[in-house]
Amino acid sequence: MNSLTYSKFPSQTQLNPAPELSVQKWLNVDETLSLEKLRGKVVAIFAFQMLCPACIEHSIPQAKRVHQTFSSEDVAVIGLHTVFEHHQAMKEESLKAFLHEYRVNFPVAIDLPADDEHDPIPQTMRTYRTQGTPTLLLFDRNGCLRQHKFGHQPDLVLGAEIMALLREESFDLALAGNPSNN
Amino acid sequence: MNSLTYSKFPSQTQLNPAPELSVQKWLNVDETLSLEKLRGKVVAIFAFQMLCPACIEHSIPQAKRVHQTFSSEDVAVIGLHTVFEHHQAMKEESLKAFLHEYRVNFPVAIDLPADDEHDPIPQTMRTYRTQGTPTLLLFDRNGCLRQHKFGHQPDLVLGAEIMALLREESFDLALAGNPSNN
Amino acid sequence: MNSLTYSKFPSQTQLNPAPELSVQKWLNVDETLSLEKLRGKVVAIFAFQMLCPACIEHSIPQAKRVHQTFSSEDVAVIGLHTVFEHHQAMKEESLKAFLHEYRVNFPVAIDLPADDEHDPIPQTMRTYRTQGTPTLLLFDRNGCLRQHKFGHQPDLVLGAEIMALLREESFDLALAGNPSNN
Amino acid sequence: MNSLTYSKFPSQTQLNPAPELSVQKWLNVDETLSLEKLRGKVVAIFAFQMLCPACIEHSIPQAKRVHQTFSSEDVAVIGLHTVFEHHQAMKEESLKAFLHEYRVNFPVAIDLPADDEHDPIPQTMRTYRTQGTPTLLLFDRNGCLRQHKFGHQPDLVLGAEIMALLREESFDLALAGNPSNN
Repeated sequence: MNSLTYSKFPSQTQLNPAPELSVQKWLNVDETLSLEKLRGKVVAIFAFQMLCPACIEHSIPQAKRVHQTFSSEDVAVIGLHTVFEHHQAMKEESLKAFLHEYRVNFPVAIDLPADDEHDPIPQTMRTYRTQGTPTLLLFDRNGCLRQHKFGHQPDLVLGAEIMALLREESFDLALAGNPSNN
Repeated sequence: MNSLTYSKFPSQTQLNPAPELSVQKWLNVDETLSLEKLRGKVVAIFAFQMLCPACIEHSIPQAKRVHQTFSSEDVAVIGLHTVFEHHQAMKEESLKAFLHEYRVNFPVAIDLPADDEHDPIPQTMRTYRTQGTPTLLLFDRNGCLRQHKFGHQPDLVLGAEIMALLREESFDLALAGNPSNN
Repeated sequence: MNSLTYSKFPSQTQLNPAPELSVQKWLNVDETLSLEKLRGKVVAIFAFQMLCPACIEHSIPQAKRVHQTFSSEDVAVIGLHTVFEHHQAMKEESLKAFLHEYRVNFPVAIDLPADDEHDPIPQTMRTYRTQGTPTLLLFDRNGCLRQHKFGHQPDLVLGAEIMALLREESFDLALAGNPSNN
Repeated sequence: MNSLTYSKFPSQTQLNPAPELSVQKWLNVDETLSLEKLRGKVVAIFAFQMLCPACIEHSIPQAKRVHQTFSSEDVAVIGLHTVFEHHQAMKEESLKAFLHEYRVNFPVAIDLPADDEHDPIPQTMRTYRTQGTPTLLLFDRNGCLRQHKFGHQPDLVLGAEIMALLREESFDLALAGNPSNN
């Protein structure tokens, strides 16, 4: 199972910090977040749509378990509402009621709609080329994307992957001599 | 378990046909329905809200099972969207997307909002005095309300209750001599 | 779904009372039972093996639910331990521990081993030609076999089937003029 | 959650290799195993009884998931049949049928009965002072006991714990200067 074969440090090709999230609005936060602000923590982003049945059944409950199991000092759990269909049905007002009813209290980012109003795909979804929902994006302490999974990840695998990243040292990308570091 | 002790015919106090539904709009139908039109069938109404977690986890799947298990000649399954909170979050546009995503193809009635715009309780909900969602309303072939259950009903009990009503004869309430028949 | 299309009375071909159980030993009873003694009740026999995973996961829990849901005045629930493999592994001593650990307190019959010691199929299993475990045998109030189901039956269907049989009148087979009545 | 706060190396008090298993018989193996032979791997021992409902529902399926998820080069999964009740019901013949029916193909050790025939507690269970079944014992690459859990451990936590131990270096206990090393 290749998801469990992380080398102890990311390979050179993985040393580039992932592109920043494009966010229309943050919910459940005191101040806006960013991947850069979360540098030093492992970050688990659960991309979902509030009317996606698999997200409700599997992904949101798993995100809550990750949020409850790991210390927020170590692991940041973020929901990313990437609406690519039924846009009128899943606006901010509905999302807020959803988060209230499903007791989601970790930070949730609303993905920024496309510049072109005819483009249904929001910007972070486009940047990361996610295939749909649910999608899990897992970042190491240096902000590098280490896992990109469409569909459901078993808890046993996800727990192992997060711990593998937690056990890595945070390091200075500049000192690591990566010319594409930005 | 008193839910399984139906007498073969409803008692005199149960002989009144239940009040009609107050419906703003019907979805998943060719023409509007009513309890009166469904006279002769057992009718199972599942009152729900699309953002009610217990409805999504238990009630909607159970309604789908009832719909698939019993012949539509015998049993009419109806979803009743009785929104009493987060009204802006669960409007028709969102409900339609919900029904599409959750593959709900039985008729769904949107409960008529109260006349008073400050009253959050819609009219059918008020008429039937339901306590919340999910609620199951079960009617016999004569349109009499025979079961009113807030919360979850086990499948074994519900299957037995529906069959008990199916085994009753449809009868003419007027001939039964019920003075309060309307 | 033909399991839900019971006519109100069994057809002539179903009027024969089913053959009696062949039982080595009864557990969880004060005195031995028989189909004949249970005449007048609906009888649900859950044939199982204590080391059959599908029995443990689905059938035994369902039998317990039937036992808890319906009055024992109306419905008799019986476990039938029909061992056809691993005979040494599922002897009475092990079965008793199993029943204790799984909190099974309805009557359980141990199917009578074949006369021929080389024949792995016990006698009731052979009489009823069950294909394996779990198998459900459902009898009406007159002792006629009305349902024979190998594998899992959904609760909704089983609840409906039991109630359909409960709603039938018990009747006198002799008066019904059935020549094969015994 | 203190189960996720492993220091990178065990503390001095944890440096003692755990006592060896006392085994009557190994099943599903080509040759007998021991903790000593497994030094260098993380070892997950699932203590169970074949007639323990919580073991069947939770622990055995979890053991199978661990066995399937992690490489056998890294993690050794072992079932330990620690019978402390119903001894006659769970003898080797029954256990073998159980392992066959439940598709358990990882190594299983039968805990050695007590010397005193009146003592129901088998020897490994006594050595490790387990409180019952299911119990999880988790050992690091050096054979030190690092986790002792009675009851159910969520998959997310167990996956993280195993990976934490996998990320530790194997080290030479003698060089670590532990006087009680044996």
